[in-house]
Amino acid sequence: MKNTLKNITENKIFEWSVVSVIILSALLIGAKTYHLPPTLVHFLTYADWAVTLFFLAEITMRFIACDDKKRFFKSGWNVFDTLIVVVSLIPIEDSEMALIGRLVRVFRVLRMVSIVPELRILINSLLKAMPQLSYVMLLMFIIFYIYGAVGSFFFNTINPVLWGDIATSMLTLFRVMTFEDWTDVMYETMETYPLSWSFYLSFIFFTAFAFLNMVIGIVVSVLEKENAAHDRLLLEQNEEELNQLDKIQQELDEIKALIRSGQR
Amino acid sequence: MKNTLKNITENKIFEWSVVSVIILSALLIGAKTYHLPPTLVHFLTYADWAVTLFFLAEITMRFIACDDKKRFFKSGWNVFDTLIVVVSLIPIEDSEMALIGRLVRVFRVLRMVSIVPELRILINSLLKAMPQLSYVMLLMFIIFYIYGAVGSFFFNTINPVLWGDIATSMLTLFRVMTFEDWTDVMYETMETYPLSWSFYLSFIFFTAFAFLNMVIGIVVSVLEKENAAHDRLLLEQNEEELNQLDKIQQELDEIKALIRSGQR
Amino acid sequence: MKNTLKNITENKIFEWSVVSVIILSALLIGAKTYHLPPTLVHFLTYADWAVTLFFLAEITMRFIACDDKKRFFKSGWNVFDTLIVVVSLIPIEDSEMALIGRLVRVFRVLRMVSIVPELRILINSLLKAMPQLSYVMLLMFIIFYIYGAVGSFFFNTINPVLWGDIATSMLTLFRVMTFEDWTDVMYETMETYPLSWSFYLSFIFFTAFAFLNMVIGIVVSVLEKENAAHDRLLLEQNEEELNQLDKIQQELDEIKALIRSGQR
Amino acid sequence: MKNTLKNITENKIFEWSVVSVIILSALLIGAKTYHLPPTLVHFLTYADWAVTLFFLAEITMRFIACDDKKRFFKSGWNVFDTLIVVVSLIPIEDSEMALIGRLVRVFRVLRMVSIVPELRILINSLLKAMPQLSYVMLLMFIIFYIYGAVGSFFFNTINPVLWGDIATSMLTLFRVMTFEDWTDVMYETMETYPLSWSFYLSFIFFTAFAFLNMVIGIVVSVLEKENAAHDRLLLEQNEEELNQLDKIQQELDEIKALIRSGQR
Repeated sequence: MKNTLKNITENKIFEWSVVSVIILSALLIGAKTYHLPPTLVHFLTYADWAVTLFFLAEITMRFIACDDKKRFFKSGWNVFDTLIVVVSLIPIEDSEMALIGRLVRVFRVLRMVSIVPELRILINSLLKAMPQLSYVMLLMFIIFYIYGAVGSFFFNTINPVLWGDIATSMLTLFRVMTFEDWTDVMYETMETYPLSWSFYLSFIFFTAFAFLNMVIGIVVSVLEKENAAHDRLLLEQNEEELNQLDKIQQELDEIKALIRSGQR
Repeated sequence: MKNTLKNITENKIFEWSVVSVIILSALLIGAKTYHLPPTLVHFLTYADWAVTLFFLAEITMRFIACDDKKRFFKSGWNVFDTLIVVVSLIPIEDSEMALIGRLVRVFRVLRMVSIVPELRILINSLLKAMPQLSYVMLLMFIIFYIYGAVGSFFFNTINPVLWGDIATSMLTLFRVMTFEDWTDVMYETMETYPLSWSFYLSFIFFTAFAFLNMVIGIVVSVLEKENAAHDRLLLEQNEEELNQLDKIQQELDEIKALIRSGQR
Repeated sequence: MKNTLKNITENKIFEWSVVSVIILSALLIGAKTYHLPPTLVHFLTYADWAVTLFFLAEITMRFIACDDKKRFFKSGWNVFDTLIVVVSLIPIEDSEMALIGRLVRVFRVLRMVSIVPELRILINSLLKAMPQLSYVMLLMFIIFYIYGAVGSFFFNTINPVLWGDIATSMLTLFRVMTFEDWTDVMYETMETYPLSWSFYLSFIFFTAFAFLNMVIGIVVSVLEKENAAHDRLLLEQNEEELNQLDKIQQELDEIKALIRSGQR
Repeated sequence: MKNTLKNITENKIFEWSVVSVIILSALLIGAKTYHLPPTLVHFLTYADWAVTLFFLAEITMRFIACDDKKRFFKSGWNVFDTLIVVVSLIPIEDSEMALIGRLVRVFRVLRMVSIVPELRILINSLLKAMPQLSYVMLLMFIIFYIYGAVGSFFFNTINPVLWGDIATSMLTLFRVMTFEDWTDVMYETMETYPLSWSFYLSFIFFTAFAFLNMVIGIVVSVLEKENAAHDRLLLEQNEEELNQLDKIQQELDEIKALIRSGQR
């Protein structure tokens, strides 16, 4: 039975039907955001249960088909899939909880990523790039923190909505970084501190520089990986040629010995 | 006659006159958007018919000059050219249809792309890049869909114009992605949900990351193509040198045999 | 005398003094934009004449020092320098002309580019990149023209200030491309044509794609130039090694001939 | 004692405790931007003194542990650290000075950069990129200055708040470069000068081009560095192979000599 299930779960048709059901579940979620006639709402509830049961069956089948039960839950994607299905199963009446139930149903769309291998590769490559970027992120955070503190000290009394405390200031600075109506923020503080334009311009320069540094960093690391593969090829070829040359050298020594022995 | 037409259609002067007529047709379209005296409007209508007839003659000539009539319509550009000319010929009175007639005349400007080879290469390279980007586009769409659903669930009651249903929410999110007055959208929802800034910031981070990933992906694929050509050159050179070395080895073996036979 | 002037004009001190006078002339222009006491205005006029005379003397000296008088005016930078100085000399009373006199004085700052070699290199590299970008620019213009015409046809009656004629429409589309309050433009037309969001989104996608294509194109051309230099090095090395191997082959043939002659 | 202190300051635990105290000092700064009960404010003052004393002790220890006292202050980071601590020690009563005291405490967060080596590398790489960018910056400044002067001459009477003098004009142009409500600025001047859109569009093109040039410049310089390392490897391998080939040549000469001497 395990092998039968394994064959089924690894079948292309099975995979495509799972993808179809995920798309269906996405459409159900989208449909719920519109005002619908009661009969359709009723139908959506049934369709939702059908999707949940299908997902439950699919996960169960994949679990049974799995050779090593322990390793099954070591894959983050499997844990995510199971969690989504289990939480969907809990019947919820409370309005607070109903919201969570709804959110879980939204996250079912993310199962698309765990099913389609190309998307999983994309996400993994994004996650792999993360540690590489962590120090630039930390530097960015320090810039934000310092400018946030300075902004809060100086501009607090001018506009507490934008500069009330350090957290609000950092949100305002993020807004300045995205150039969203940043001159309105600047002109307001320039009325009290005419030189405060230097605060905003230096901030924009620093963050733009840090961002540029990040992008260049990624390009360089990609280049280095490419060049490393290239250099490996070069070294292999060199070794091959040098080996050949060594052999020729040995043969020459043999020839010399032969000639010498003939002349004696 | 077919050869005569072929010579004409492949002539530089012919090509330039086609380009000139396309530019003229573009100017006619542009002129129509201005308020003009009736006599000029009259003239424009005649000029428009002249352009249509010229295009008809040109396509007919190119069709007759073509060796393989079947292959003529296999090229997307030829189909596009013929369609544009044929639809231009239909006399239209109805105001609804007049609009379509006008649109078709606008798309005649696109014939520039089908005539100038450099532009055709550009468009082809854009189309070639498409499948490569499709998975990033899909990932982007999933991010938009999930955030759209969540936004619609939570913020629906706050501002139905922006978050009324999932389609409207996705349009609002596209606006947030372009940083267009995104803080107005955020400040509005933060009054009800003070932590909703995390919704917007995480969305901006995810989309920026996916976009960055896309750009890096294109650069890497370009790099790989360049490096592949480079590696081919390297491998060829290596093979050439190894062949030479093999020949030397053989000569050495011959020499050894010669010496040995001399000593016997 | 010609050689003396040549030595002077090629002197480092002379170059630095020209740079200083250009900076002074820039400061004079900047100062004039402020409200100044009459005595200072008086002084500025004298300083302006001093700058003009200095530039006249400098150009004259460089012209006399030049070996080939014809080639002097073949350099675009020299023509530009002379023009700026000559126009500065014309006494202007008329207020209309006074504006041109002022503009010419502003363009004197550009002499900085013609004097500092590093800036000249930058500008030349920008000009060199131009033809390479011309086809992308043309494609961009076609996209703008088509969308401008369509926008003008459909949205003319909604807001003639933004979509009145094709030129105005193209300016509005440039605004949309820079994401500057583009949703205001969109929401306005969506009231009449609910599907007009597709007009804006497709436009943004096409222009973003064309822009991305341009950037990638530049990076690729830079890469190819770099790789070409690299491949040249590789080919030279290969030729060198093959030459060496050929020589060895010849020597081996000689050795074989020697052995054979000895055995006869 | 010096060696004991050296061991302590180079200890991992010591480094982490310094990082912790810096984070604590950052939290203190952040906390001060909120409205706090008096007891907590009291506590913050004590904590602040504790941090100052810890930093004083740490710097003193590192100074004593340093072998070469002169070289200690040659490192910019050490000077920065000492300055921050010394200024923190000055008791300040005056409200004007209190602000400076606060700012110094904010800059203590920057000590994070001087302690964490990865961040120091990032900052150093940013500083190293600076001179390379200086000429693009100068070109950018010239563009800003010329457009600022022209803008101030023409638009001064239209809106003195935006175009009053050259400094204000340059700030307005920076705003235009970030696309922040730039159409509002343009539409205002277009009422008086209908062709002033060309002023803004040419400015945007020039600055975008200069910016693009800068980014491409960095990528090229990174590429060249990578390729230089690659070429070095290639040249080394080539030399190695040529040496080997030379040795073979010598051996062949020896063999020829041997054969000739045998035949004599």
